[in-house]
Amino acid sequence: MQFSAEQIAALINGKVEGDPNISVDSFGKIEEARQGQLAFLANPKYEDHLYTTKASVILVNDSQALREKISSTLIRVPDAYLAFAALLSKYQEMMKQQLTGIQEPSYISKSAILGEHIFVGAFAFIGEQVKIGNNVKIYPQVYLGDRVTIGDDTIILPGAKIYSDCVIGKEVLIHGGCVIGSDGFGFAPQPDGSFKKIPQMGNVVVEDFVEIGANTTIDRATIGSTLIHTGAKLDNLIQIAHNVEIGNNTVIAAQAGVSGSTKLGKNVMVGGQAGIVGHIHIADGSKINAQSGVTKSLKTPNSAVTGSPAYDYTSALRSQVANRHLPDFEKRIQELEKKLQVLLDSGQLTIDS
Amino acid sequence: MQFSAEQIAALINGKVEGDPNISVDSFGKIEEARQGQLAFLANPKYEDHLYTTKASVILVNDSQALREKISSTLIRVPDAYLAFAALLSKYQEMMKQQLTGIQEPSYISKSAILGEHIFVGAFAFIGEQVKIGNNVKIYPQVYLGDRVTIGDDTIILPGAKIYSDCVIGKEVLIHGGCVIGSDGFGFAPQPDGSFKKIPQMGNVVVEDFVEIGANTTIDRATIGSTLIHTGAKLDNLIQIAHNVEIGNNTVIAAQAGVSGSTKLGKNVMVGGQAGIVGHIHIADGSKINAQSGVTKSLKTPNSAVTGSPAYDYTSALRSQVANRHLPDFEKRIQELEKKLQVLLDSGQLTIDS
Amino acid sequence: MQFSAEQIAALINGKVEGDPNISVDSFGKIEEARQGQLAFLANPKYEDHLYTTKASVILVNDSQALREKISSTLIRVPDAYLAFAALLSKYQEMMKQQLTGIQEPSYISKSAILGEHIFVGAFAFIGEQVKIGNNVKIYPQVYLGDRVTIGDDTIILPGAKIYSDCVIGKEVLIHGGCVIGSDGFGFAPQPDGSFKKIPQMGNVVVEDFVEIGANTTIDRATIGSTLIHTGAKLDNLIQIAHNVEIGNNTVIAAQAGVSGSTKLGKNVMVGGQAGIVGHIHIADGSKINAQSGVTKSLKTPNSAVTGSPAYDYTSALRSQVANRHLPDFEKRIQELEKKLQVLLDSGQLTIDS
Repeated sequence: MQFSAEQIAALINGKVEGDPNISVDSFGKIEEARQGQLAFLANPKYEDHLYTTKASVILVNDSQALREKISSTLIRVPDAYLAFAALLSKYQEMMKQQLTGIQEPSYISKSAILGEHIFVGAFAFIGEQVKIGNNVKIYPQVYLGDRVTIGDDTIILPGAKIYSDCVIGKEVLIHGGCVIGSDGFGFAPQPDGSFKKIPQMGNVVVEDFVEIGANTTIDRATIGSTLIHTGAKLDNLIQIAHNVEIGNNTVIAAQAGVSGSTKLGKNVMVGGQAGIVGHIHIADGSKINAQSGVTKSLKTPNSAVTGSPAYDYTSALRSQVANRHLPDFEKRIQELEKKLQVLLDSGQLTIDS
Repeated sequence: MQFSAEQIAALINGKVEGDPNISVDSFGKIEEARQGQLAFLANPKYEDHLYTTKASVILVNDSQALREKISSTLIRVPDAYLAFAALLSKYQEMMKQQLTGIQEPSYISKSAILGEHIFVGAFAFIGEQVKIGNNVKIYPQVYLGDRVTIGDDTIILPGAKIYSDCVIGKEVLIHGGCVIGSDGFGFAPQPDGSFKKIPQMGNVVVEDFVEIGANTTIDRATIGSTLIHTGAKLDNLIQIAHNVEIGNNTVIAAQAGVSGSTKLGKNVMVGGQAGIVGHIHIADGSKINAQSGVTKSLKTPNSAVTGSPAYDYTSALRSQVANRHLPDFEKRIQELEKKLQVLLDSGQLTIDS
Repeated sequence: MQFSAEQIAALINGKVEGDPNISVDSFGKIEEARQGQLAFLANPKYEDHLYTTKASVILVNDSQALREKISSTLIRVPDAYLAFAALLSKYQEMMKQQLTGIQEPSYISKSAILGEHIFVGAFAFIGEQVKIGNNVKIYPQVYLGDRVTIGDDTIILPGAKIYSDCVIGKEVLIHGGCVIGSDGFGFAPQPDGSFKKIPQMGNVVVEDFVEIGANTTIDRATIGSTLIHTGAKLDNLIQIAHNVEIGNNTVIAAQAGVSGSTKLGKNVMVGGQAGIVGHIHIADGSKINAQSGVTKSLKTPNSAVTGSPAYDYTSALRSQVANRHLPDFEKRIQELEKKLQVLLDSGQLTIDS
């Protein structure tokens, strides 16, 4: 979509300086923007960019003085950063509102119940008895298995797969390639060394305001539900095993993994590529460093751990530092042993053993 | 699907106590179940749940005594756990049998050969000369490249992609988002610092009774086959590189990776997020701990390793424990050095060097 | 496709020895090949395979002598390895050329601009104002969001998803299940402990000759572009966060992750499952070992690091070796302490403290 400087100024109550008809179609950083983009300058320290940027339109503070002529069109506002953020939100809202209707071909089973103002993209599959709330956007190539429920205002991006019986809340954002509701990894060892599959009959419940990154996988519970509580944010390529519970507003960075039946409390932060074993509990507010391997419950709220196996952040760091001096330790121990031996050999000292 | 207590009792030879017409549509844990679910109580220790559960129907042991009135309908059987497991299996079999026919639109090339009683979901793609066995279920949005072969009773879940020429055995279960047969990662360095692709002309062979988790990737061989042998179980988000071989009944947990040309023996167990370098061999029955990094062949059957780099489990654990005492070691070495220096400085001892 | 020995010999200027009409349909390793496959023997050391292989046709060096009769048909060439490599390239080129046309049903928006000799597979989705160059292959179930641009000769394999506004160069190869342009993971913490999404308005730019592995995810920039420069090669299941920059000819192995705003220079090599924190810079030619965790910029070109946290390769290895002797260190320190104490207790030495 194209907007003129004048239209933008009207949206954010700004004053145009320059060509009110010049138009932009996207956003850029002031130092990298190309012609046709809108940028902002909030910090006067970076004023130099004003005179070199290729951005067609720039939001600046009312107070911004100019020491040279500039070729871009300016829009003056009280606070350029806030105005820019407001503009981004309005733009996203506008884009979202535009997206409605059912593209063809798509597959919508007759028993599905659809809300109002929804979008269903081409090649999306909607199974039997699926319930979709109002203003939901189902992008192309999404799969919703039988009896899946999707709350109002949720967005499911291209190619995400949600297996049967899973429940997704309101204002959830699920990225492309996610698989939600795949079987938990459960097998009973047999006498001949083979494994017999344990049926995975539960589901996944994703509560409101959750975001789930691209290609993340969340397994259904064996019985009951794998639970992602309100406001949790999961990055890309994360593994959540069966019967796991992720607390409110807990944040998990990319490529981390949580093993079966483990419960994370509220406001936990898990770093990238961290792993957490099964059947433990992580107390509210705990911080797990990137690449850590947590093997025991963290019972104290606001614990901080690092390392694999993970332990207390402060002492782990101290061990890591000491670890770099290890070859030095070895030399120092050898030196001590040598000196003591010299003393014993010299007859100055004797040890009865 | 809805079943009455009476229908369920008939399936498992149980006796109904309570309303035979009450119906359930899914399974739950006794402590979490909602109305309309079926639960079980096997361990008398948890008897309390009987009086508080919302489950509509509960399987209990014949021997279970009741100390209070309960609102749920009971089905009495000799062993409630076994009866519940049998019920799950029967239910899954029933669900599977129901799934037949070809949904439209789907793309089935004319040269494909289809078995009997198969299911092909909407937006599935079946390439030239593909061969599909009997009772195979191809879910929506699956891709089967040219000349792919699928054995009897195999299930391929939504959005899995199988590139051309791959061979999948019988009773295999492939989860959503898997990519099987993608190019191996092979490049020849060029004098100018760039890389030239080495064509990857082999395929992937997945033998019978294998399960492959969601979004797992298995690369085709450069020449020949990447092999996943009978009964192997792979969890989600695993990487299997080109020309790898995974032995019978080997189990690999989520987010682990195996580099090119490495061979894992039979009944190996690989923990989550573990990595194994290329061109090595892991002996039968070996155990690789979660997050380990295996850099050398494990030649002895039933080896157990941990750590990155990985070594012998017992001595690695001893090193991990000692590692936590490192800052303490440093202090003790300093103390010894200081004392020896004091002794030398005091003239009580002399060392000729 | 089937080729006769005679046709193959003509392609690579070889001489047929045996049946010129025998035909092959694929390539195999000489030691594993089945009937109907073509293999090669370059190293005379492996001559034995010539007499046992099931390959129907074998490329051999002109100089190869035979000590027994063989059943396969031979094609003699000056250098069997080079001839085999040339044949693979010609075969792949031929396969590629065959793939043209638009399969139905596919979804191509009216405002999309399509190049010549392209292939669009069934169930592919091409959004508004998408621009596709010449000879591009879009496989089934691919998603191209609005305003995506694809350069000449690029191949996008089944089920890859490219979100709106991303730019893909020429001769790029994108594997199945990739998600390119998903939202960066950016949230502003709120006073109540919840997180507010920061709109992610940038895009991803993938330059020429890049290869991206299966199920890899590359997030769009917050503002501006996440950049994958010319000739970079990314393996499977890799995470590239928002505003990251990957230099020319940099190679990243499977399951590695790069956090937000980090810049990798040219010809960097990143091992499998390695992680790199955000907002740092990795100098040209650096090598990051598998499973490393890089927490600080590598400012010196051609740095080599390992470990988590990662440091200098040589001293890290020395620490790793010393680490295995840790339990031994402990014993040796104890021994020294004991001996010194014995000496002090015996009255031979005194320390004034």
